[in-house]
Amino acid sequence: MSDCLMNAPMAAAAADRVMARCDALAEISETPQYLTRVYLSPEHLRANALVAKWMQAAGMQVWQDGVGNICGRYEGQRPDAKALLLGSHLDTVRNAGRYDGMLGVLAAIEAVQFLHDRGERLPLAIEIIGFADEEGTRFGITLLGSRGLTGTWPESWVTHPDGNSITVAQAMKDCGLNAGRIWQAARDVEDFVAYLELHIEQGPVLEQEQLALGVVTAINGARRLNCRFVGEAGHAGTVPMSHRKDALAAAAEWMMFIERRTPQHDPQLVATVGTLQCQPGAVNVIPGEVALTLDVRGPQDQALGELLSELLSHAEAIAQRRGLSFSADEYYQIPATRCDEALQSALTRAVTAVQGRSLSLPSGAGHDAIAIAERWPVGMLFVRCDRGISHHPAESVAVADVAKALQAWVQVVSEVAGK
Amino acid sequence: MSDCLMNAPMAAAAADRVMARCDALAEISETPQYLTRVYLSPEHLRANALVAKWMQAAGMQVWQDGVGNICGRYEGQRPDAKALLLGSHLDTVRNAGRYDGMLGVLAAIEAVQFLHDRGERLPLAIEIIGFADEEGTRFGITLLGSRGLTGTWPESWVTHPDGNSITVAQAMKDCGLNAGRIWQAARDVEDFVAYLELHIEQGPVLEQEQLALGVVTAINGARRLNCRFVGEAGHAGTVPMSHRKDALAAAAEWMMFIERRTPQHDPQLVATVGTLQCQPGAVNVIPGEVALTLDVRGPQDQALGELLSELLSHAEAIAQRRGLSFSADEYYQIPATRCDEALQSALTRAVTAVQGRSLSLPSGAGHDAIAIAERWPVGMLFVRCDRGISHHPAESVAVADVAKALQAWVQVVSEVAGK
Repeated sequence: MSDCLMNAPMAAAAADRVMARCDALAEISETPQYLTRVYLSPEHLRANALVAKWMQAAGMQVWQDGVGNICGRYEGQRPDAKALLLGSHLDTVRNAGRYDGMLGVLAAIEAVQFLHDRGERLPLAIEIIGFADEEGTRFGITLLGSRGLTGTWPESWVTHPDGNSITVAQAMKDCGLNAGRIWQAARDVEDFVAYLELHIEQGPVLEQEQLALGVVTAINGARRLNCRFVGEAGHAGTVPMSHRKDALAAAAEWMMFIERRTPQHDPQLVATVGTLQCQPGAVNVIPGEVALTLDVRGPQDQALGELLSELLSHAEAIAQRRGLSFSADEYYQIPATRCDEALQSALTRAVTAVQGRSLSLPSGAGHDAIAIAERWPVGMLFVRCDRGISHHPAESVAVADVAKALQAWVQVVSEVAGK
Repeated sequence: MSDCLMNAPMAAAAADRVMARCDALAEISETPQYLTRVYLSPEHLRANALVAKWMQAAGMQVWQDGVGNICGRYEGQRPDAKALLLGSHLDTVRNAGRYDGMLGVLAAIEAVQFLHDRGERLPLAIEIIGFADEEGTRFGITLLGSRGLTGTWPESWVTHPDGNSITVAQAMKDCGLNAGRIWQAARDVEDFVAYLELHIEQGPVLEQEQLALGVVTAINGARRLNCRFVGEAGHAGTVPMSHRKDALAAAAEWMMFIERRTPQHDPQLVATVGTLQCQPGAVNVIPGEVALTLDVRGPQDQALGELLSELLSHAEAIAQRRGLSFSADEYYQIPATRCDEALQSALTRAVTAVQGRSLSLPSGAGHDAIAIAERWPVGMLFVRCDRGISHHPAESVAVADVAKALQAWVQVVSEVAGK
């Protein structure tokens, strides 16, 4: 499009560089066969060092903070200017893709590189953070990087062990960090005006809509439950169908209801039964007990709560009618994170400038923006990924999409930091 | 009833003795905490010895045959008379009840005891067999006792290992048996005119009908399949409901169809999904693959085959509509065993004499009669058991029901062997 600050040839060149840097970061892995890079590992430090080099090349002042985030600052027109914060994470799940997180950090560096190449300073400074831990792969607790920034680490985290019984505190020490100085990573609320994060969608919606880019309305809230139907086990040959209290049949009826009712309630809601176990679990025994998990998510907490209530009531009704019992235990709940309206508008303008139209969609996956939103307004740009595949080596983005993303990114950063 | 050969006080006394003998056999177990007695174990030999003692007390000549069955013969009016064969099995599942199998052997001994006490000989001899293995607990192959009698052991059986890699042949040797002489257990087709077996129902139908006794029409045929729906795994948060290829949702839809369609097809048919596994099986991942088992049973092979075809076609249709694939592998098939019409009539007369009316029902579980029916006409009498529970320590029969069963048993044995 003609009205983009970063023109198409520049965007193509920058996108090539981003792809090459994603490949370079993917080489930094604890195993050569596949990509795994976890918090406070030697690979974490190596990735930070490489990103620091790229930040410096873009004219940024660089430091590693108290929890191991790699940080860079590109000064604004005045040295004490507040900053627009950009970022995403540099850690991975096991056997990961190479774009989840990294693409956002590298796109942010390209936006600064663009300004630096033109010798341009904006009214606001720009800071970039490569968060040290979003996935929670090593310690099973998530968002350690972004919650370092907000200063909201619970005290218990430093004693949390990894799979080898190494605590966070010990792992920090092994990396030259100090668990007693985690507070140094926390930033004043006045430091930043807003946080913007670019990320792959990790879902199929943009691909379905044939769009490279979309604007996130909210990061879905999620609730997770362990559920159980208890009926009566019995001999698969001797108990007539009419006499059964089959826990699996009850669960099947409920799963049908969940699948039908969830999108009727609201097309943005999703509900998943991801695991199911039968007891006693033999080919010739009617299941007496079924344990299953329910994961429900949506961009609005109220709608999510209403759906969940309805699903649970229906499970009770199914159980009662069949002479079984039903129980559910909610063990995880995270509220929805709304993206800032003004940032959504700015992102929508930028995306429209690049691809002619925009699409607003919720994020089904969690992101660093969840933690940051506790303190600062957040906005997110989504980039299409192949078949929605993520957390898998087959994770893939098109270089042409990355070019468009960079054009939009320069556009929105210039607008937000330009005021 | 007034026209029973065994009157009520005699039946009550005999039933008390049967219950005490069930308790005595239940003491012979490889573990003191619960009842487990498997083929070719020390407990097997001890149970045989105890049953032999009871047979001898009932005036029978006793021997152990070539596969370890304990056998007794009560001569008829002429020493070369053909015999009516009675029996059931003495082995158990792990953590078993004390009536499954044993009740049939002990009831048969009481019928002979009744004749012996009166010094009565019938035209036919009566033989009783306590089969050495019906359940297949130790070697995972079933009906070893009754198939010794029919001479239909496959050659491969003697090299079949148990969980400790001890072969059948070695276990026989350890028990003083000889795997080279299994053929000695086989009986001439002329030896017997018929086989009658008394067994607990192991299902809830008689209890539901408030009847102590019922007559078996057929032992259900059974077919077992490993089935699989393959869809597409996906992120539980990012894939909208409308974009999913959820293998568990497809399986749930199929299970609903199975439950509804099976009794519509024929109320005597049963179908059970007893096991189900989701892949990858995480709370936050849409199941991409579901493996489940299907067990269908019924007293008529044709109806069973028609039902199975319909269920599989429907699974295909569900998979196709949802964009998944479905496959099924039948790994076990046993045809239905029809009970002899004349023996059913004799049993029905006996049951009607005892309890005023009779009920005919199929057997959902397998029995020694399946093997015996390959060579001789078979008939079976079912005795009500508490809540249909079997293969469990809670397996229970009422002593009053056993008394009625003994009255009917004397009645039918006298009729069939009296001709």
